[in-house]
Amino acid sequence: MRKVFLTILLASPLIVTGCGNSQEQASTGGGAGVEPTTHKASYTADGHLIRPDNWREWIYIGTPVTPNGLNGGEAPFPEIHSVYIDPTSWKHWKKTGTFREGTMIAKELSMAISEGAHEDGSTDQVSGRGYFQDIFSGLEFAIKDSVRYPDEPGNWAYYSSGHAPGVAYPDTMEALPAQACNTCHEFNASDDWVFLQFYPVLKEAKGG
Amino acid sequence: MRKVFLTILLASPLIVTGCGNSQEQASTGGGAGVEPTTHKASYTADGHLIRPDNWREWIYIGTPVTPNGLNGGEAPFPEIHSVYIDPTSWKHWKKTGTFREGTMIAKELSMAISEGAHEDGSTDQVSGRGYFQDIFSGLEFAIKDSVRYPDEPGNWAYYSSGHAPGVAYPDTMEALPAQACNTCHEFNASDDWVFLQFYPVLKEAKGG
Repeated sequence: MRKVFLTILLASPLIVTGCGNSQEQASTGGGAGVEPTTHKASYTADGHLIRPDNWREWIYIGTPVTPNGLNGGEAPFPEIHSVYIDPTSWKHWKKTGTFREGTMIAKELSMAISEGAHEDGSTDQVSGRGYFQDIFSGLEFAIKDSVRYPDEPGNWAYYSSGHAPGVAYPDTMEALPAQACNTCHEFNASDDWVFLQFYPVLKEAKGG
Repeated sequence: MRKVFLTILLASPLIVTGCGNSQEQASTGGGAGVEPTTHKASYTADGHLIRPDNWREWIYIGTPVTPNGLNGGEAPFPEIHSVYIDPTSWKHWKKTGTFREGTMIAKELSMAISEGAHEDGSTDQVSGRGYFQDIFSGLEFAIKDSVRYPDEPGNWAYYSSGHAPGVAYPDTMEALPAQACNTCHEFNASDDWVFLQFYPVLKEAKGG
C-alpha cells in the first residue's frame, strides 16, 4: 500500500506543500485577534512531524486541479489541490520574495463532486460544467529547514497522509524519501522547489 | 458590454461571494500580528462598495472550476474561482453556523494555463492533466446586510469587476440588480444563499 503510494508520487509528484504548527502559541487564525508571532513546525522526539490543526486558516496561494477522469482514472494527486502557506512565511515572502527557513506549505486534496459526472469527471452545475469540491482526500506538507534537512535538495522535506476519499489524517507524519517528491520539484518547480508558475497569488505578492 | 455581462450572469450565476473592508483598522492579515477586531464593508457617499485590498488574506473556503473549454468556449465565470470569507464572519460561522450581518465573501477568478491545451482547456503538467492557474480574470463580492439591502432576497447584494483575462479591478463597485445573481442563489444555494454544497471547508467548520 505504502509502496503503491510512493510509486504514484514518484511517477508524478507535484506542487506540494509544507506544514507546521506553532510552538510558541496555538494559532487561532482568521482574525481571532491573537496570532502567533512566528509559525513553526513541531516534531515528536523521534523526528516525526506533528500535524498542525489550523492549516485552513493559513494564507491560500492556489488550486491546481487534476481530475481522475483526465488521468486514466487515477490522478497522482486526486483531484482538487487547495494550497496554503503559513502566515509567517507569507509575510517574509511579501517582504523578500524568498521562502524563509521554516517555511511550511500545506496542500489539502478534495474529490470533485461525481454525481452525474461526464467521462472526464466534470459535472453540470448551475454555474456551468466543471469541477466542484466534494469530500477531502489527502493532506500534505512541505517544510524548508536547513538544520533539520541538511541533505535534502533545497532543504525541503515532504510529508503526506496518503490519498483516498475520506482518508484519515495521521497525527504525526514521517518524511517521505527525497526522491519521492523532491526530484520532481527540483527540476520542474520554478522558484526554490516551489511551483510558483501555478500560483498567481504568490507571483503577485513576491517582494524583494 | 455591461448588458452582455449581466446576461451571462443571468444565464448561469453561481457561488459568489461577498466583500468588505475594515473601517476600524486596515487588515494586515496573515498573522502580521495586528488583525482588525471586526471586518466591515466600506462604501462611498453614494453607496458604492469600496473594494477592499486584502481579500487574499481572508479565510479561503473553496475553488469551483468552470473551464471555458467545457462551456462552449465562454464559461459564465471564467475559469478557476478562488473563494474567501472575511475573518470576522469565519469566526461567527464556526461558532454559530450562520452568516452574520455584514458577512463578506470574495470570489477571485483566474484563467487556466492555456499553452498546449487540449480541447477541454486542460493542459499536461508534471503532476498530471488538468487545470492550473494563470492570470486573474475577475473579482466579485457578496455582502449580507439587512439595513443596507432590506429588499434583496436574504439581504445579500452582489458586486463584480466584470470578467476578462487581466481585467482591472475597479476601486468602487455598484451593486448588481437582484435578478442578476440573487435569483440563482436563492433557488440553488444550499445555505442562506451560499453554495455550501461546494465548500467542504465551510461544511466541516459549521458551528451551532
